[in-house]
Amino acid sequence: MSHRVGKRTIRFDNHVSIVSSAGVAGSKESSGPLADYFDEVYSDDLLGEKSWEKAESRLQKNAACAAMDKAGLSAGNIDVVFAGDLLNQCISSVFGLYSLGIPFVGQYGACSTMAQSIIMSALLTDSGAANYSLAVTSSHFCSAERQFRLPIEYGGQRNLTAQWTVTGAGAAIIAASDNPCRIEDAVIGKIIDMKIKDANNMGAAMAPAAADTILSFFEDTSTKPEDYDLILTGDLGFLGSELLVSLCKNEGVDISRQHNDCGMLIFDREKQDVHAGGSGCGCCASVFCSRIMQQLKSGELNNILFAATGALMSPTSSQQGESIPGISHLIHIRR
Amino acid sequence: MSHRVGKRTIRFDNHVSIVSSAGVAGSKESSGPLADYFDEVYSDDLLGEKSWEKAESRLQKNAACAAMDKAGLSAGNIDVVFAGDLLNQCISSVFGLYSLGIPFVGQYGACSTMAQSIIMSALLTDSGAANYSLAVTSSHFCSAERQFRLPIEYGGQRNLTAQWTVTGAGAAIIAASDNPCRIEDAVIGKIIDMKIKDANNMGAAMAPAAADTILSFFEDTSTKPEDYDLILTGDLGFLGSELLVSLCKNEGVDISRQHNDCGMLIFDREKQDVHAGGSGCGCCASVFCSRIMQQLKSGELNNILFAATGALMSPTSSQQGESIPGISHLIHIRR
Repeated sequence: MSHRVGKRTIRFDNHVSIVSSAGVAGSKESSGPLADYFDEVYSDDLLGEKSWEKAESRLQKNAACAAMDKAGLSAGNIDVVFAGDLLNQCISSVFGLYSLGIPFVGQYGACSTMAQSIIMSALLTDSGAANYSLAVTSSHFCSAERQFRLPIEYGGQRNLTAQWTVTGAGAAIIAASDNPCRIEDAVIGKIIDMKIKDANNMGAAMAPAAADTILSFFEDTSTKPEDYDLILTGDLGFLGSELLVSLCKNEGVDISRQHNDCGMLIFDREKQDVHAGGSGCGCCASVFCSRIMQQLKSGELNNILFAATGALMSPTSSQQGESIPGISHLIHIRR
Repeated sequence: MSHRVGKRTIRFDNHVSIVSSAGVAGSKESSGPLADYFDEVYSDDLLGEKSWEKAESRLQKNAACAAMDKAGLSAGNIDVVFAGDLLNQCISSVFGLYSLGIPFVGQYGACSTMAQSIIMSALLTDSGAANYSLAVTSSHFCSAERQFRLPIEYGGQRNLTAQWTVTGAGAAIIAASDNPCRIEDAVIGKIIDMKIKDANNMGAAMAPAAADTILSFFEDTSTKPEDYDLILTGDLGFLGSELLVSLCKNEGVDISRQHNDCGMLIFDREKQDVHAGGSGCGCCASVFCSRIMQQLKSGELNNILFAATGALMSPTSSQQGESIPGISHLIHIRR
């Protein structure tokens, strides 16, 4: 069972934990600061496949299998998988995971999909409907560039406010367990539209949604930034993160000391020339499921908020003059 | 709380009901056999908007608002909305629903999204995380043709095995209530890939998934087709439905007397020239949320299975030689 705390926060009454997780990453990501923390890295961004889309499917499958292996579980043990990605009709999830034969619930929250999938997994496990739930998301730089911007062969110059879509995936297994890494609370995001239309500045489009979700959580739970070791967003990048900190400050809440962002952690800003930082469903998924979960397990982190953010647009909506609404789903995890 | 019955069936322990629903439909649909049952019909398939995509967003909003009106609820009463559609990045859901300000969880299950969204709503309500949950899906013939096949201006000739994407939407509100229309059980579908590659014969691609889900439910619950007034699929159309009945028969289960399909119900096969029947997220959503729910409320139906089916493909996956995997999610509803 679960219950509401305040207006929007869902508190899980049962002990629901992330019992295993794995993050996998491509070549650029494995040359960055988190190289040593990923469970698998690939020097060939095609992963031996014939297309970027098939390579992205492979990332999802590899992350899912790595997380199951680490927990000593096989696909037959998993009752349900929540998965999603950025590609049209979520094909990297479908073609990556169908051979596992796990009941499948496709999720779409753009880059917020990992937190969304973990919340759904926690709800199913908490309610008794599943023993083991799996949350998986991915992104791939080349499949995303082709679909949302320009084919990479075109060699288009990137805007300095643009983020770099991460080639990577993350998977987390959620179970009713006394394990550490307990999911205590969740907030489901509202769609926040500040009428930003620049598809090369997603951080700005998503920051207001992150602020809305994080501030709602503080209000509902009567807690403050100092109560947490880390307030992790994903993936606002450098520009969106500055904006989030300043939006919160305007509301009298200073998160500057606790805040970090998966899009800032995954690349080296000086050496890797990724402009505004990393993004994509695979960015916060691979960072959270590897480095952050390792820090939670080791006790380096004890009490964190993870608020993934998504930009809910498509090339079609942008071509038709629509703005870019953002969304942010939050989970509160305690060691 | 909920618990597992057999291998895959989720049984809701609390009394979770569909307390209100509404189906809205476009011009062709409102010239068909269900004309009198839709809550709203539109003679202008653009609904006064400037694009097919914006019109589809309007369908979602109108269905959601009609369902809330019928229950005497406003958007502020709804704790969460589960919504999805066929468009890239689910934009008709995002742009249709964001102004309602309800916490949003994007779903993607192709044409199975309505059953998937109802299952998620039921789980959230059953677990105590939500008082009122809303499930909404839509499709639009013109936005789907442009995205998946050919722009309608091209005047391409349709294959006789092709289904006609319904212009419509449905919305259902789920709450903990002693109301009739109780959701007793649910089965989350597996992705079933029979290696069918013909995007003009979706019924054949989805029928095996429907058979897998329905037969699993009978096995888990030790029930048989005769125990139900109606076994409703959506949207296999005429060809897929024949295939489903025959696949079940091969396993010793005769569903021919109880089975019907939303894609067969919504159009008049003789007069409306829709070839293999209706399809799209809005087909089973508009049929289930109007005609079927009315029959459940009046007592004409008392105990039904609703198994929505989806074809998990995209033009990109088909161009890359992938097959069309199917999925089917089931709910069991008792008056």
